[in-house]
Amino acid sequence: MRIIVDVMGSDLGCAELVKGALDAKTQFGDELELTLVGKESEIRGAITANKADASTVTIVDAATVMDMNDAPTDVIKAKKDSSMAVALTLLRNGEGDGLVSCGNTGALLTGATMIVKRIKGVRRAALAPSAPNLQGRFLIIDSGANVECKPEYLLQFGLMGTIYASKVLKVNNPRVGLLNNGAEETKGTDLHIESHQLLKTSGLNFVGNIEGPAAFSAECDVLVSDGFSGNIFIKACEGMSLLVNNLIKDVFVGSFSGNIAALLVMKGIKNMRKKTSSKEVGGAPLLGVCKPVIKGHGNSDAYALKNAIKLACEYSKSGVIDDIQESVANYTDDKE
Amino acid sequence: MRIIVDVMGSDLGCAELVKGALDAKTQFGDELELTLVGKESEIRGAITANKADASTVTIVDAATVMDMNDAPTDVIKAKKDSSMAVALTLLRNGEGDGLVSCGNTGALLTGATMIVKRIKGVRRAALAPSAPNLQGRFLIIDSGANVECKPEYLLQFGLMGTIYASKVLKVNNPRVGLLNNGAEETKGTDLHIESHQLLKTSGLNFVGNIEGPAAFSAECDVLVSDGFSGNIFIKACEGMSLLVNNLIKDVFVGSFSGNIAALLVMKGIKNMRKKTSSKEVGGAPLLGVCKPVIKGHGNSDAYALKNAIKLACEYSKSGVIDDIQESVANYTDDKE
Repeated sequence: MRIIVDVMGSDLGCAELVKGALDAKTQFGDELELTLVGKESEIRGAITANKADASTVTIVDAATVMDMNDAPTDVIKAKKDSSMAVALTLLRNGEGDGLVSCGNTGALLTGATMIVKRIKGVRRAALAPSAPNLQGRFLIIDSGANVECKPEYLLQFGLMGTIYASKVLKVNNPRVGLLNNGAEETKGTDLHIESHQLLKTSGLNFVGNIEGPAAFSAECDVLVSDGFSGNIFIKACEGMSLLVNNLIKDVFVGSFSGNIAALLVMKGIKNMRKKTSSKEVGGAPLLGVCKPVIKGHGNSDAYALKNAIKLACEYSKSGVIDDIQESVANYTDDKE
Repeated sequence: MRIIVDVMGSDLGCAELVKGALDAKTQFGDELELTLVGKESEIRGAITANKADASTVTIVDAATVMDMNDAPTDVIKAKKDSSMAVALTLLRNGEGDGLVSCGNTGALLTGATMIVKRIKGVRRAALAPSAPNLQGRFLIIDSGANVECKPEYLLQFGLMGTIYASKVLKVNNPRVGLLNNGAEETKGTDLHIESHQLLKTSGLNFVGNIEGPAAFSAECDVLVSDGFSGNIFIKACEGMSLLVNNLIKDVFVGSFSGNIAALLVMKGIKNMRKKTSSKEVGGAPLLGVCKPVIKGHGNSDAYALKNAIKLACEYSKSGVIDDIQESVANYTDDKE
């Protein structure tokens, strides 16, 4: 498995991501070939600092970096020489089986669509992170790639999410829900009302509209959303997580009895953190693009990046992209 | 202070709400006059079951109940004799200073607007619950009353939220943020881009676009939102809360060391629950209506209802409604 990693443009810097990549290489050994793209001197410096052997990975130099503030389209215009653009071009040219980047989300979406291209028939690529629920995890698609959506896009999100949940999350006959502001099928904006009807007659395992509590109670495996609401949803969860982690810290830190209690339930708390941490999954697939692209969180540490590389391998091996291509073609044929 | 309580139509039933009302009466004594509206026999039965004196409250009989599945407009059509419609009519007629209902949200919004009426100049009434953050609480307005919004509505939500946060939450010069999918002012749908510009030049203490993590990190006091996204936001938080509470339970329950730890940090956990529980606030004001209407959660217990009644008193005393009326009139004059 050959994975291309854009090691620039994240919050914690190049060295942290290089460390994560080296950790992945150590864990997966010869099964994994890595191409690290970024400023060569920084990458070599980080490899030396980690006392690792630079010959175990391929390094591709890129002159610039897509910053968080750069316009998404810069990736195909002013910053064609950025690590992100170079990495995407390598992927397009078959120099790898999958790609991971923790850089500017909008730029990665634009670059993936314009350089790597969408699967034929797919109207819009969508970002599909997963979140924990009472039983395991569920997929949220789209969580931010498409602010403005049409009902047909949401239908395709449901289809792509179903295939991914089935093949990568190993869910049998995934239940598809529509993120909405009420359970009744007349709820929501026109987009949601029309999307509900499309999903209902789609042949997917559609379970209807889903609200926050139902989503976390594991009432669906794939939560279809327009990119704006999906983004509000996952960021609300991130924010709430941040608050709760702080409150839990307050419970245990700063008192003797709290410290003792922390020792007693250390393992349970670690398990809980593990279940709710986005670092365990490492990233989100950009479904609908014709090669595996994984968006890692902007603040990914080495551990998160290692898991994102693992996810890129799983996604690449899964056959999801072929299945999406086939299903979308069939679906389009049916409609014509 | 005279508060009218619709004691029907909630998840836990009339008796639970009557208990909450009686608790409020016990706590606030002669300062509080309560009018309970609902099926008289059920109310009297609940008062007897609580060994309370029925003469301390006024009971108004209502023949029917707005169910959760009733169409919102039924409150002014087929179910004019429902406890909700009767309670709203009492409020309109000056038979109370504020109203609390835990019934059908859509119906309460419709009824409040059609029976009690909006403040002159207010384009849309908005539901404004508060949520905990790292420093205290912040208001989310609108959290579900208006699925389709215009930029001018969001501007008014910012204005009404500012007045409420200032007078009821006692925040000095409340910071207003716009719930959006990114920090840059070009982010979001057309509605959000236009609303951002309106808020920026409004004279309100506008701090820009706010995403989930910033909201919970206490970067604003009033989070302005269209009713659809606001609803997605608060329900995502509810869902995440539900998940976290379950995970925390797993940490402490089922093992000896967990039980000991729970004893050691019992107080801290209770504090944490208190901070994150919606029952502490009890309900959300429906801002923009010309008399105080509080929406209690559908699953309110006695404790939550008691707090909702307390909130109705605070809201009624605050002068918020007069201030909104004046500000909206001034603002409208300015524009003309």
